[in-house]
Amino acid sequence: MSVDTLTISKPVLVGILGLGTVGGGTAEVLQKNSVEIARRAGRSIEIVAASVRDINKKRPAVLDNVKLTLDSNEIVDDPNIDIVLELIGGTELAKDLVLRAIENGKHIVTANKALIALHGNEIFAAAQRKGVTVAFEAAVAGGIPIIKAIREGLAGNQIEWLAGIINGTGNFILTEMRDKGRDFEDVLKEAQQLGYAEADPTFDVEGIDAAHKLTILASIAFGVPLQFEKVYTEGISNITSEDVEYASELGYRIKHLGIARRVDSGLEMRVHPTLIPHRRLIANVDGVMNAVLVRADAVGSTLYYGPGAGAQPTASAVVADLVDVVRALTTDPGNRVPHLAFQPDAIQDIEMLSINEAETAFYLRMQVRDQAGVLADITRLFADQNISIEAIVQKEQKDDQGCVPLVILTHNVLESNMIAAIEKIENLSSVTGKVIRIRLETLG
Amino acid sequence: MSVDTLTISKPVLVGILGLGTVGGGTAEVLQKNSVEIARRAGRSIEIVAASVRDINKKRPAVLDNVKLTLDSNEIVDDPNIDIVLELIGGTELAKDLVLRAIENGKHIVTANKALIALHGNEIFAAAQRKGVTVAFEAAVAGGIPIIKAIREGLAGNQIEWLAGIINGTGNFILTEMRDKGRDFEDVLKEAQQLGYAEADPTFDVEGIDAAHKLTILASIAFGVPLQFEKVYTEGISNITSEDVEYASELGYRIKHLGIARRVDSGLEMRVHPTLIPHRRLIANVDGVMNAVLVRADAVGSTLYYGPGAGAQPTASAVVADLVDVVRALTTDPGNRVPHLAFQPDAIQDIEMLSINEAETAFYLRMQVRDQAGVLADITRLFADQNISIEAIVQKEQKDDQGCVPLVILTHNVLESNMIAAIEKIENLSSVTGKVIRIRLETLG
Repeated sequence: MSVDTLTISKPVLVGILGLGTVGGGTAEVLQKNSVEIARRAGRSIEIVAASVRDINKKRPAVLDNVKLTLDSNEIVDDPNIDIVLELIGGTELAKDLVLRAIENGKHIVTANKALIALHGNEIFAAAQRKGVTVAFEAAVAGGIPIIKAIREGLAGNQIEWLAGIINGTGNFILTEMRDKGRDFEDVLKEAQQLGYAEADPTFDVEGIDAAHKLTILASIAFGVPLQFEKVYTEGISNITSEDVEYASELGYRIKHLGIARRVDSGLEMRVHPTLIPHRRLIANVDGVMNAVLVRADAVGSTLYYGPGAGAQPTASAVVADLVDVVRALTTDPGNRVPHLAFQPDAIQDIEMLSINEAETAFYLRMQVRDQAGVLADITRLFADQNISIEAIVQKEQKDDQGCVPLVILTHNVLESNMIAAIEKIENLSSVTGKVIRIRLETLG
Repeated sequence: MSVDTLTISKPVLVGILGLGTVGGGTAEVLQKNSVEIARRAGRSIEIVAASVRDINKKRPAVLDNVKLTLDSNEIVDDPNIDIVLELIGGTELAKDLVLRAIENGKHIVTANKALIALHGNEIFAAAQRKGVTVAFEAAVAGGIPIIKAIREGLAGNQIEWLAGIINGTGNFILTEMRDKGRDFEDVLKEAQQLGYAEADPTFDVEGIDAAHKLTILASIAFGVPLQFEKVYTEGISNITSEDVEYASELGYRIKHLGIARRVDSGLEMRVHPTLIPHRRLIANVDGVMNAVLVRADAVGSTLYYGPGAGAQPTASAVVADLVDVVRALTTDPGNRVPHLAFQPDAIQDIEMLSINEAETAFYLRMQVRDQAGVLADITRLFADQNISIEAIVQKEQKDDQGCVPLVILTHNVLESNMIAAIEKIENLSSVTGKVIRIRLETLG
């Protein structure tokens, strides 16, 4: 096959559900890189139809030959369409359409992390029965080929843990807070103006989006079913510029991480702000960029970095999935890369640990009266819970009650022990207000 | 298929050519992770035979059931063996054995970068004729799945350039020089003692190893034939601790990079020490670690980081290749991922540019007499060659001839213009000795 005769191979025909930013970006990438894509895939990939909400809206010229319809069922039922690209977002309608497309024997490519995190088990079972593929590289970390790296590139390893900056909005906010000493609310407003954050920023700043992605990463890393409801999720809206600054003074950066870790007793899945030593590569991933650090037994630590969102980066992942699906068309379905990395019958239930069973170090900040004996009281309470202290820093600026900030870094401790200690510390008369706590991971 | 019944599927049988560090590591990883690997691949992968130089040498227990032979032909001719793992290194014997195994219809997995860089075109053509796969993930950047990322994960993109720290020994030396102010020779000796560098360190420190890897990366990124002889190669043995320190003062790190870049007039392939702004993630990749930064049109910049050498990291890549080959066994050969990312008939000749045609910024250091008019002379010579200056720093410590170091950073300039300017500068009576020059890339 030469470049000139590529058109002789029958093109693969794609229908899109939902023609928003990512759909438009995908159409653009498929057109501008059509020669390179056909040189790689051996066939051309063409978008032939798309379902939209407004059929009369002005669209870019690249969509001129795409048949538009208001009825998504027309796409999933179209016998000419080989692959359905699901980009309508949301979970209920998307799920119904994807299942119907699968029943019709179509392969699926989706960028919908919520759909996979919440309904992936059911969708993959249906795909398995019909011998079709559901590809979802774009669902996690945008343009970074992280699904492929874990599912295929690390196939020889037992994965020990992974930690990812997997929400660009949150990382942008934390980066601005650190670089410019700005407050959370102030940066959030700017992120909304820049289009990085939604009008309702809950999914991003409260960690739900990251939890969807972590659910998927944990499944493909450890061979467990998707279990979004088991992810402990804590957002960044309580992080103050003071904590960012104290962390920095102590040699740490605060990042919003999704962490999945295999321990003897089970599997931890948690999303929360985390102090990381500033020399770690992942601590230097700034702005809207994403990165996932994976620790595996044979290879050691590998890290994957890139843009986690945006029309073109997401389209990059969508097109890579399209090429993969095209390449696997002649593969016996049982030999394709399994959806969740492990063969469907080899998916195992591993106990999902509650956050109380997680063991991490902690950064604590509290306001204490500037008087003798305070430190002795606090350190005794820590000792009672078997918590050992890595560093204590007492700051000098007094608040209007004559109290000063006390910052403590602990060694690793069971979450439940830390909660018990904090409760007692908050009851001390020499401590005012709540104890601020942020988990700390060395990721070494 | 359940985990318990995996053994019912016929195992895939592997023969190894050469049972050194990587062969031993691969056997170990295949055994310790046999359950996980079978859960992923759907079949078990077993090493049944290996060719060795010394049949009586004591081997680890994991190799107890492996039939050893002094005759590599026994492996490549064994009708029971499905996949041959080439780990003897070198290029001539390895090439003969690999071609013979291909003729016998066997798939190949190799970690041999020199073999692929020098003879890959011939080997892939033979594999194509026989419908078998030659997998070589372990040949570049050890355990980092960089071949997979570029060849599959970025399949929707036109790649613009890539820049990689792809020799761990060189990166270890430069990191030590920077962190501890040590000299090149001193660190090289330590690297040899630690086993990071060979007794003959030429391949590592003179950039030949990196040039082999760059040859492979450039081919899969740009769809060109492998052309090792076209790579411009410069090592790190001339880098002094002074230059490392001056670069650091100016906000840069010196890294030994392999760079491939598509420009309008052709393709640059070059390996050389390079100043990079210290805030770039890749500038913070230290010690023996590797990283490859890829700039592509849709996704933007992605970076892949991990250990570039070592028995277990290399084994990780080898086993991932084994799993890939197993998965593709039922795939129509024309639909498999092409060896060089692009379909064999779609590989194009792009003009390979000589280093004289490359455009980079430069760091220059020279010894100048501490007298009036020197700067005027030098800057006039730059202006004559259309070279514009980004920064000039004059140091105060005089050498025994009363000369002081002058450090200049330029903007981007054609290499040939820089060479012309340097020749004239070296002829100035106010400049003593040679002008040290190190290329500078912003990688922005």
